[in-house]
Amino acid sequence: MGEKGERTKKMIREQAAALFAQKGFSMVTMKDICEATGLSRGGLYRHYENTAGIFEEIFLEMATENENLIDRRIKEQIPAMEILKEEMKFLKEEMLNSEQSLSYPIYEYANTVSRDLFEKLNEQGYQKWERLMAYGVSRGEFRKENTAAVITMILYAYQGIRMWSRVINIPEQAAEDYENCIIQLLQNGCRTAGTK
Amino acid sequence: MGEKGERTKKMIREQAAALFAQKGFSMVTMKDICEATGLSRGGLYRHYENTAGIFEEIFLEMATENENLIDRRIKEQIPAMEILKEEMKFLKEEMLNSEQSLSYPIYEYANTVSRDLFEKLNEQGYQKWERLMAYGVSRGEFRKENTAAVITMILYAYQGIRMWSRVINIPEQAAEDYENCIIQLLQNGCRTAGTK
Repeated sequence: MGEKGERTKKMIREQAAALFAQKGFSMVTMKDICEATGLSRGGLYRHYENTAGIFEEIFLEMATENENLIDRRIKEQIPAMEILKEEMKFLKEEMLNSEQSLSYPIYEYANTVSRDLFEKLNEQGYQKWERLMAYGVSRGEFRKENTAAVITMILYAYQGIRMWSRVINIPEQAAEDYENCIIQLLQNGCRTAGTK
Repeated sequence: MGEKGERTKKMIREQAAALFAQKGFSMVTMKDICEATGLSRGGLYRHYENTAGIFEEIFLEMATENENLIDRRIKEQIPAMEILKEEMKFLKEEMLNSEQSLSYPIYEYANTVSRDLFEKLNEQGYQKWERLMAYGVSRGEFRKENTAAVITMILYAYQGIRMWSRVINIPEQAAEDYENCIIQLLQNGCRTAGTK
């Protein structure tokens, strides 16, 4: 596919992402996406077979872009804490900007269509954080004790705040609390189960 | 209402809770609850007007029982860390026993019926943890810096793990990680936003 095709696919993903965020996965049809993009039915189906294909590509693209960014920053020898804070900035924006968040659609998708996508994203996310942790430990910035436990907190506290912020009014302070606790855990370590 | 009536209501709530956990809120009808309890339509409606009434009472009862337990333990001057670990035991069991968890039904309820119930439970939960934190600080067991931030992590990491454990396979270690990180945060404090 040429450059023009790639541009069209990207435009489709962007328009579809806004619809998914607004209505959830199952309520968005290929017809809705035709209307939002201004493409004909044939024009849309030339690029994507169904909404699931678009949905999956949106997430896989975001994950890959984010991983590439972190790996590049590590290669540039940026301090791990700085990279962490950049990541936290994205996460906090998403937590507070819940209307555009795809947290509920991905949960719905995992519940109703396939859990494979989320399993894959979760695994990729985990590995990405592991690389950043190992880098921070190697630089003496993070304590090693149990970075795996901190990753659990990073991933699931984020999910909890994101999902609930679509429904109830979570104060902005919650996103700050999240960042501060994660930094604290990395600087002081987190006890392993064996040392209780 | 006499003792027999209270016993019947409790039995209704127990049977209904199992149905909600299994099917979500909106998929359970008063007819399903008649079948599960063996009550006639008239017998059920004498106690509850609709499924929302039963659903709300299940949560409010659990929250009150839990609050009373903590307040009693504080009054008995049990160490705060011991009370915390008892609480963590409940939370961990629920996180790992996701099929019986009401985490998804309450999310669905808040999204589709009313957010008031969750707002109220969240507020009560927050205040309960605040009392335990203040007690732990007064005994010199917990550091004071920013217990509010730790409560955010307690509440939302729990929500994230619970909700996702219904969908994907989260290792048991995640519940241990959660407990260990919370203890770590309480013992080392968590920096406030102002001290970044």
